[in-house]
This record gives sequence, C-alpha cells and structure tokens, in this order.
Amino acid sequence: MCELLGMSANVPTDICFSFSGLRARGGRTGPHKDGWGMAMYRDGDVWAVHDPRPSADSDMAEIISHTSLKCDIVISHIRQANVGAVSLLNTHPFSRLLWGKTWTYAHNGQLDDAFSLPINHYHPLGNTDSERAFCWIVEQLSQRFGEVEPSLEALSNALSELALQLKQRGVFNMMLSDGIRLYCFCTTKLHWITRRAPFKKASLSDEDVVIDFKEVTTDKDVVTVIATQPLTQDEVWQQMQEGELCVFEGGEVVSQILPTEQVEEQQARVN
Amino acid sequence: MCELLGMSANVPTDICFSFSGLRARGGRTGPHKDGWGMAMYRDGDVWAVHDPRPSADSDMAEIISHTSLKCDIVISHIRQANVGAVSLLNTHPFSRLLWGKTWTYAHNGQLDDAFSLPINHYHPLGNTDSERAFCWIVEQLSQRFGEVEPSLEALSNALSELALQLKQRGVFNMMLSDGIRLYCFCTTKLHWITRRAPFKKASLSDEDVVIDFKEVTTDKDVVTVIATQPLTQDEVWQQMQEGELCVFEGGEVVSQILPTEQVEEQQARVN
Repeated sequence: MCELLGMSANVPTDICFSFSGLRARGGRTGPHKDGWGMAMYRDGDVWAVHDPRPSADSDMAEIISHTSLKCDIVISHIRQANVGAVSLLNTHPFSRLLWGKTWTYAHNGQLDDAFSLPINHYHPLGNTDSERAFCWIVEQLSQRFGEVEPSLEALSNALSELALQLKQRGVFNMMLSDGIRLYCFCTTKLHWITRRAPFKKASLSDEDVVIDFKEVTTDKDVVTVIATQPLTQDEVWQQMQEGELCVFEGGEVVSQILPTEQVEEQQARVN
Repeated sequence: MCELLGMSANVPTDICFSFSGLRARGGRTGPHKDGWGMAMYRDGDVWAVHDPRPSADSDMAEIISHTSLKCDIVISHIRQANVGAVSLLNTHPFSRLLWGKTWTYAHNGQLDDAFSLPINHYHPLGNTDSERAFCWIVEQLSQRFGEVEPSLEALSNALSELALQLKQRGVFNMMLSDGIRLYCFCTTKLHWITRRAPFKKASLSDEDVVIDFKEVTTDKDVVTVIATQPLTQDEVWQQMQEGELCVFEGGEVVSQILPTEQVEEQQARVN
C-alpha cells in the first residue's frame, strides 16, 4: 500500500511540516520505501518531483521537507509497491491533460484486474494498476463531457460514480487536482484537518517537530491538509467515510458526496 | 529553441555550477523561459524535476542550483516553446521504459512533420515534436532489437542512423541516457568539456560565479559537461560536428560516430 498527502489553501503555503511527517514513513517510521513524488500547483502552474528512492533517505526529499515552496495545492505520495516495479515511471503522482489543464492524481490501494479497464486515447507510461485507473478515469470524463469542463456538481457526481466503480475492484483512496480544486475519494483511510484562526501549535507524530502555526500564518489563512493517517498527535483530524468524495477549494469543502447519497441517487435512477 | 545540459562523471558529482549558468538563460540572460526540467541518475536510479515556469524565476530551480545532489549522469533542459503549449507534460526530459531500464531524453530543435513519425506502442503524453520523436526512437529500437539490449556499438550505430533521419526533418540536438551512458547527437550546437586533474578554476559566462574545481574534486575524478553553448568563459570547450553522435560513460568518450563514417558506412551498404 501507500500513503497520500494533499493540501488545499486559500493563500500560497508550503508543505514542509506535513511532508516531514509523511517522509519519515517512507522507510523509517513506515514501510512505504518504494519512492515518493509531489505535484505542486501555484497560480495554475504545476511542477513536479518524482523519485523512486525511499523518501526517508532521499536527498531530494530532504530538500523538499526543508525548503518553503509556496503552493495553492499539493498532492504527494509515498509508495509501497505492489503492482509494477520500483521505477520513475511507476512513481505517483501521474499527470494528464484534460480540458486544457494538467490534472494530477495519486492513488493508495490495490485494484483487481485493473488492466481490463478499457482505455483508448490515454495510455499509461508505467505498469501500475494506479496509473491504469487514472487513464480510465480521464478517458471516461473526456468521453462523458467532451471538450468542455462540466460544473463542479456534474464533475463531482461523475467522479464519485467512477470512483465507486473502482472501489468494487478493491481499495481506492485517491487524490486528483486541476490546480483549483482537490478531489479526494476514500475507500478505507483518508483523514483531513482544516487549520484557520485562531491558529495553535501542532506536533508531528513521526518526527520530533513542533510548529506554532500562529507564527507562520495570518488571520485570513485557511489551510486544509488531507492524509492517509493523521500526521499530528495533538490535533483532531476528521475521518472520511467509506465511499465519500470530498472536494476542497481554497482550503474549504466545496462539494461532498456521501456514499448514502450516491446510493440513493443510483436507486432513484433505477426506480 | 531550447538549451541542453548534460553531465557524465566517474564519481557522483553535483551539477550546481553548470546549472546556475544554464538557469540564467531561462528568462534572464537567454529567452528559454518556457519551463525547465532535470533527470538525475545515481547508482541506476533516476529521479526527475519538471517545472513549466521560467528557470530564472523558479524557486524550485533556485534550490537545484544551490543544493549539492550527487549524480552519475544528469540531463537538463530549458525550453523556448515552439510546438506544444507551456505545460508540465510538454516539459523535458521525457522518460520511457526500454530493456528494463528508464531511458531519459531531451531535445533542442524543431522537426518538420514530426507527427507523421509512426508510433504504435510508445505514446506521447504531451504534444511536442520532441516527445513524438523520442517515442519513435524508442519504438524503432524496441522493434529492431527486441527484448534484449544490444552492444554499445550496435546501439550507437542504430541511434546515429535514427538521429540522422530526424536531422533531415530539421534541427535535432539530443541527449539520451539509461543511467550508465549519455548519448549525445548534434545537428547544430553541442559543446563539451572534460575536467580532470590537474583541476583549475572556471568562471560562468552567465552568472558572476567562479569555482575552483581543485577544492571540490579528487585526482581520480573525471567529469564531462555537455551543453548547447559553452557555460564558462575561461575554458576551452569542444564543439561537436554536425551529424556526430558522441557517447559518454564515467566522464569518458566511449563511442563516437562522425557523420563521414556514417555516410561511408551507408554508402558501403548501398554498394
């Protein structure tokens, strides 16, 4: 399996504190030593780092965990390989072009028979079930909505529906972003916390690091961090439900589809 | 057009000095402001950074130019877009899997009608002529040699032949690596320098930076740097010939195919 880390903020914010915690789980406090990657969005641009070495040992990860790179949205992933060798091309996050924007995605879990998911235009570069599922999602969205990006509501519903289909094949915890919104889907484990004024101190669970968010924020800042497991030991994280899709923009929840709603909607359609 | 930077060394070496010079050309001393990227190989692993922002302004490029990340081989590229929008997926270097290894490639130049180059298995993610040509090269090598990597001689000959075909479509300056060797092909501009004992001082052309290589090397170090234009003002760089393929391993030239040899060989075959 793997671990995911995401951030959505209303002001450019660095991920150093959270990534320091995640990074330790890549070979030191956790077994996810088969590479790590990070996509960082700011003002619509996205840049990325992919490194198949253990994040706990990587000099590149060391830099990222100690240098303030201000971002609006971050998706990061540390890998424990199951399907696909340890290599650059199998290192999350993956990116594809859709509706004129670069969409970035990372997955935690394992999917049965992922390679039977039909694809036509969007091809994987590596050989993970995760990238195959991403190509299938992008292809489905492209087929469904054509050249024009749909509304938040329509896209959230479509993503929820597609993710529930993938969930039937196994574990599908997922983060997806276009640089404006961060879409998160939970099968088993995703936790999130929104930090806003009055800011407090927080201590990492995996490293002996304490931060006083008061010292690095203004009263207007809203920053949400989403992670497979809570990264701090003295804050209350919310756990996403099985089958829930939650969408963040500027640090706030802007769409949430709970599994019961989706089931009711599907049943209503059947009826 | 774009600029290329490569390094091959017999001992893990950082690219900070050379990249500081290249980076300035990405929006400050040069017009190549449409993104930059770097693939870094060490002990067979390759990690990569891709950033569509101008290298002269990028905080990520600032880090890379000031942090010593020791590598055996580096391929870096700063882009001045002609074909394909400025975006993450159009940012060099590109990577593909072949013969069980991750091959990384960057291109400077422009190719006529690149999208007519036939591909079947290796698909581009972005929409540059450069990536299309790379997919075609990998596909051709895969078809020609099957599952097993050929000898250095056979591969160099094949690459030279393919590169000369691409050169007929325009400008094809190229770097390609598997983490062991660095293959460079020149159409118009590629220069290289091998630094070895006795090491001296060198001054960048684009930045007010001087390095005394004596202070950062041992007598056994051999480091070759290859760049579109010489990066230093007080060293003698060798210029590659039009149509030349030069292969470096551990900082040394291990194969060199000059255009005349290739032509003679082709003529011999025809005869």
